Amino acid sequence: MAHLLKGKAVSDKITEKNLERMEELREAGIVATLATIRVGDNPSDISYEKSATKRAHLTGVNVRNFECDADITQDRLLELIDEINHDDSINGVLIFRPLPPHLDDRTICDALAPEKDVDGITSGSLAGVFTRSGVGHPPCTAQACMEMLDFIDYDLTGKKVTVMGRSLVIGKPVAIMTLNKNATVTVLHSKTTKEDFIEAGHNADVIITAMGKDGAIDRKVVGKKQIILDVGISVDEEGRICGDVDFDEVESRAEVITPVPGGVGSVTTAVLMKHVLKAAKRQAQSKGLM
Amino acid sequence: MAHLLKGKAVSDKITEKNLERMEELREAGIVATLATIRVGDNPSDISYEKSATKRAHLTGVNVRNFECDADITQDRLLELIDEINHDDSINGVLIFRPLPPHLDDRTICDALAPEKDVDGITSGSLAGVFTRSGVGHPPCTAQACMEMLDFIDYDLTGKKVTVMGRSLVIGKPVAIMTLNKNATVTVLHSKTTKEDFIEAGHNADVIITAMGKDGAIDRKVVGKKQIILDVGISVDEEGRICGDVDFDEVESRAEVITPVPGGVGSVTTAVLMKHVLKAAKRQAQSKGLM
Repeated sequence: MAHLLKGKAVSDKITEKNLERMEELREAGIVATLATIRVGDNPSDISYEKSATKRAHLTGVNVRNFECDADITQDRLLELIDEINHDDSINGVLIFRPLPPHLDDRTICDALAPEKDVDGITSGSLAGVFTRSGVGHPPCTAQACMEMLDFIDYDLTGKKVTVMGRSLVIGKPVAIMTLNKNATVTVLHSKTTKEDFIEAGHNADVIITAMGKDGAIDRKVVGKKQIILDVGISVDEEGRICGDVDFDEVESRAEVITPVPGGVGSVTTAVLMKHVLKAAKRQAQSKGLM
Repeated sequence: MAHLLKGKAVSDKITEKNLERMEELREAGIVATLATIRVGDNPSDISYEKSATKRAHLTGVNVRNFECDADITQDRLLELIDEINHDDSINGVLIFRPLPPHLDDRTICDALAPEKDVDGITSGSLAGVFTRSGVGHPPCTAQACMEMLDFIDYDLTGKKVTVMGRSLVIGKPVAIMTLNKNATVTVLHSKTTKEDFIEAGHNADVIITAMGKDGAIDRKVVGKKQIILDVGISVDEEGRICGDVDFDEVESRAEVITPVPGGVGSVTTAVLMKHVLKAAKRQAQSKGLM
């Protein structure tokens, strides 16, 4: 039986530290504020908006939800971001993505002031993942994986990490972040051969899977006594949220495994608040308020 | 017997295309100009300065060599970079690194205007490696590896690439660049176990080694019929420049192998000129001159 690593315990630990950060800001007379920007009414955006807002309120972080019509022009959205960039009362910004196709994702992302980029979408934050000295923050989901490993005191030095997926929000950054922690890292994706996929899956000490393919990680893909972080999200035929891992097949072979839902995903909003509070502190320090 | 892939043929091909780019600029009345910034008198910096200057002249690119005392203050160096950023006659800048330890490398790198960053050192360029839409350019040595593979029409899709080394100038960017070309990528480094090193070496279709350890890649590490790009540079006891590969042991097993010297390193300056000419064109276009 694997140890079931639920997100709640990890999230609680981060939140505990967040409350200390909050207290430190309060003593300096600062109210940390997160802005969210949602374009259109995508249900998963609305769901994330709700959970982020709830988490913010539990932490004591103020939230301003900006809602835009699905057909907002790129110029108007850029204007809004510019206003938020110049609004000293806002410390961090979360933009729900993917954006509708008429908006250029990279242009929108890079319009955001890097110091308010609490979800690692600007070039400054992405470069910071490479250099470890960026002004921004790593993408929250990638950071959530690192928090899970931290929580179980797992030292990545010399360990083999296999990352499945190569997106900008999770696969690529988490590959570099685990590499920076001295892991030997392999990245697999849709163009990887089936044979290589199974081999790299079997051989890993840690599997981080973020493909969004229900059941893709079954008994054939995994080895024994592994740490398995399931970051995949998909919805099955019955409307249930699923991870990439075929949990029933894999669970007994793993050393540590995260569930979906209630795993890595549930840590993301606590990480987001951590980033907002860190951003608020940096901004206060740069103004000499702390 | 492996096919010996020398840098000269690749460099010549890039230069041929560079001359076309040059001609196009000339017709628009533009003289492309590279600035080099050298701090102190490190022999390897002087050697790279000479070869870049020579290559520039062969291509028809103008060069301005800025030389600074080894004890230049950070403020003075930042002033110089700011002057160059605002000098419309300069299209690209090459800063020789590593800089002396009293200068903060990341601060200096990020002071450079991203549009003049022809060697991929700014956050904008590094993020561009992730997103493939940066304003800058990839690091020249990483791009030189891609040019070698292009030259032999090698399709990376589904192939296993093993990168040895994780520096910001070569290991990390080339890992992401080969991943972007659909390779399954593994990154090894000094903390990788010996066993994992040998396994990932053996299993690779392509080895890109950039460790700077003379002879580290011997018969035990490589498999058969591989493409081996040697980007390592070190100097042996007799003062000769060496790669990472024990050439005599490995050459007969490889499908394609690059020598050192005369391999990947000799392609770097042609790539640099390509980046300068592309930068000059982009800058001219943004001013409506082309």
